[in-house]
Order: sequence, then C-alpha cells, then structure tokens
Amino acid sequence: AIAAHCAGLFDTGSLAGKRVVITAGPTREALDPVRYISNHSSGKMGYALAEAAREAGATTVLISGPTHLPSPERVTLLPVVSAEEMYAASLQALPDCDVFIATAAVADYRPDQAAAQKIKKGERDTLVIELVKNPDIVAAMAAHTPKPFTVGFAAETERVIDYARDKLERKQLDLVVANDVSRSDIGFNSDENAVTLVWPQREENLSRRSKHQLARDLVERIARQLA
Amino acid sequence: AIAAHCAGLFDTGSLAGKRVVITAGPTREALDPVRYISNHSSGKMGYALAEAAREAGATTVLISGPTHLPSPERVTLLPVVSAEEMYAASLQALPDCDVFIATAAVADYRPDQAAAQKIKKGERDTLVIELVKNPDIVAAMAAHTPKPFTVGFAAETERVIDYARDKLERKQLDLVVANDVSRSDIGFNSDENAVTLVWPQREENLSRRSKHQLARDLVERIARQLA
Repeated sequence: AIAAHCAGLFDTGSLAGKRVVITAGPTREALDPVRYISNHSSGKMGYALAEAAREAGATTVLISGPTHLPSPERVTLLPVVSAEEMYAASLQALPDCDVFIATAAVADYRPDQAAAQKIKKGERDTLVIELVKNPDIVAAMAAHTPKPFTVGFAAETERVIDYARDKLERKQLDLVVANDVSRSDIGFNSDENAVTLVWPQREENLSRRSKHQLARDLVERIARQLA
Repeated sequence: AIAAHCAGLFDTGSLAGKRVVITAGPTREALDPVRYISNHSSGKMGYALAEAAREAGATTVLISGPTHLPSPERVTLLPVVSAEEMYAASLQALPDCDVFIATAAVADYRPDQAAAQKIKKGERDTLVIELVKNPDIVAAMAAHTPKPFTVGFAAETERVIDYARDKLERKQLDLVVANDVSRSDIGFNSDENAVTLVWPQREENLSRRSKHQLARDLVERIARQLA
C-alpha cells in the first residue's frame, strides 16, 4: 500500500508515465589491457538529469560509462565502458523510450584493434595508432521510428553555438544543450554549469547554476515539449 | 616539545634520516583539451608505499598522477598530470634522494602535439594519431650520480618475470617489483597484490596480501639493502 501510494505520488510529476533514457560519463576505448583513450567527463550532469527525471515521475534508465558517482536512487543503472557497449545498451533501452538524453562524452573514435597483450615500448621513438569511428549513438536514436524526444549535448572549446546548431540539424535532434568547456569554472568535473539551449527555432541561455538545478530546469522544459 | 618527541620516534625507524621519492598513479597524455590517453593505475600501491616509508622514518616525497586517493599524512605530495611533468618533478626531487621508487604507470608515448582546440570528428571514418616516446623516468633516475637505490615496477600481462628482469638489467635498477595485471583479483584498482621481487641475483615471491602490508614488507627489504 505504501509502495502504491509512493508510486501514485510520482504519477503527478511532469514526466509521469514517461520513459527517459540518459547516457552519462566518459567512454573508455582500450588500446591494450592497461591503456585506454578517454576524456574528462565526470558524469555529474547525466546523473543529475537522471535524478531530476525520476523526481518528475519518469521511469528512468541511466547508461553510464566509468565514473566515481554513486548510483541515483530508483533509477535503473546500466554500467558500460566503451562507446560500442553504450551503443548496444542504448539500442536495447530504445523500445518505448519517450525521451533520450545523450550527456555522455562518447569517444568519437576507438583504436582499430585493441591489443590482447600489453603493447611493449620497444626501441621505436614514435608510434602510430589507427583509430576508427565509433557509432553515433544520439544520431541513431534520433533516426529511430517512433522517434524519442532526443536531446544532445555539445561540449565545445570554440564556436560553441555554431557547432551546437550544426549538430542539431545534422543529427535531427530536438534540442542541443551547448556548453563552453574552455571555461574552467563550469562544465567538466565542476558542480555548476551554464549552458545555451539550442532549439530548432531559437536559443535560450541558462545562466550559471548548480548541475542539480540545471537538471531540474532542463527536465521541466523537455516535459513542456511532450505535453 | 611534542613535535620534537614525535620526530624523535620516527628517527628510530628503519629509514630514519633517508629521503624517499615515490611516483604513483597513471599519467594522462592530452590529445586535445578534452581527450587523453591514460591507463588503469589507481595509485594505491604508490600511496601505500609513501605511508610505509614515512612510518619507517623517511622524509617522503610522493609525485602523483591523477588519482582519487587522499593525500597521505606527513608526506610531501607533488601532483602532476603528464609524463613530462612527472619527469620534471622527479628530476627536481632527485638531489639527496636515497631511494627512488617508480610505481607510476607512466605513459610510454604521448601525442606528438596536443591540439589546442577540441578535435572535430568530421567525415573521416579513420583517424591516425602519431605518438612520440616519453622520457624514461626510472632509467634517468638510475643513471644519476650519485645513484639512488632505484626500484621499478613491472605490470605485465605475459612473460612477467622475463620482462621484469630485462627491465632491471636494461635500466640498471636495483630491484623490480613484478606483477601480473592479467589477474583480475590483484593489481590495478585492487586493494591486494601478489608480486615477485626481481633482484640482480635472485627472485623472491611475495604472496597475495593487502597493498599496505606489501608496502611495509617492501620498505623493510629496501631498508636492509641500505643498511
């Protein structure tokens, strides 16, 4: 009875009855059993969005690369390591997905072949690594029929809005959240962020605030689009 | 008076009056402002050795790549990111160094040039990264006059002892601590380790134990060599 009552409470949220899938964190692309290519994503924005979506009543799935964050409560956490694993988990989570939010900093490329044994340094002064393109997860989700409301993130160091709008149009996204990671006070690993929402017809600045507040503000804006 | 008393207590340790420099953790080699090459080293072994050296009375310097570990008490922590930074910090710490212990998993290679701006994916299905060799920190320390007692670590996935002995001889080290990182129960990120000590004339197995106990056992063996 208590469970039913609690479930009832969530049903009143702005995303009640909706299924939200969120990717978070970095991916790691193995060069060999000990070395990898990765990036500075902490996962904080994606975890905060998962909490906010759950608070808004959504059934929430969080597909996360390696982070040091605790699992949010009442969220289904699917841990992955590489971009290919994240892609597979995203495809699996796609049926009945109403909203797909891609916050993960997915490696664009991975080593063509991960060595089975540790690469020995040897005598060579240089080494060439050949990388191949990873699947484009958010574009694949946006191309699905029926299409979930698909949100991308663009972390850029220059021409932030230009790149974000290009991403929105090229990948047929419904919203791109753009932020300037060249600023050291916000973004990667920070607890705060300031972003520009790039919608198909307009832009909207969300000034600097905690990632938790930003997550709630984003969830409310997404919920309004679904209503 | 209490400080003097405490200092006096440490002077009775097996490394009293000695200066120990330890490198720990991974290094990160930037591909661009957001991407890097790194490895799975947690830093736990190096931090445990720093604690054990300090407990044995040594003045202890810990040069650490990015980890999530708390700074050990009464140890001078020098945080670094890249192999080149670790090399520079090691050279600076070298004067009067009695023991140099290289636990860090230093990247053998770094990208030839880190891009100043985030690399855009573009249309290409493949990408080639050119890497150049990083300085060999432990070999440089062992080549210094006067030579500190120099300890290397060899984390291998195959032919563990062969590679460790080769490293000992090629780099003129005094001891190599060899461990098999293909075993998932020990080594990287684990709180336990089992190692083989590769000395110039013999080998010695230290069976599986906590990294803290292993650190104390290693420090005692090193102290005996200095006595």
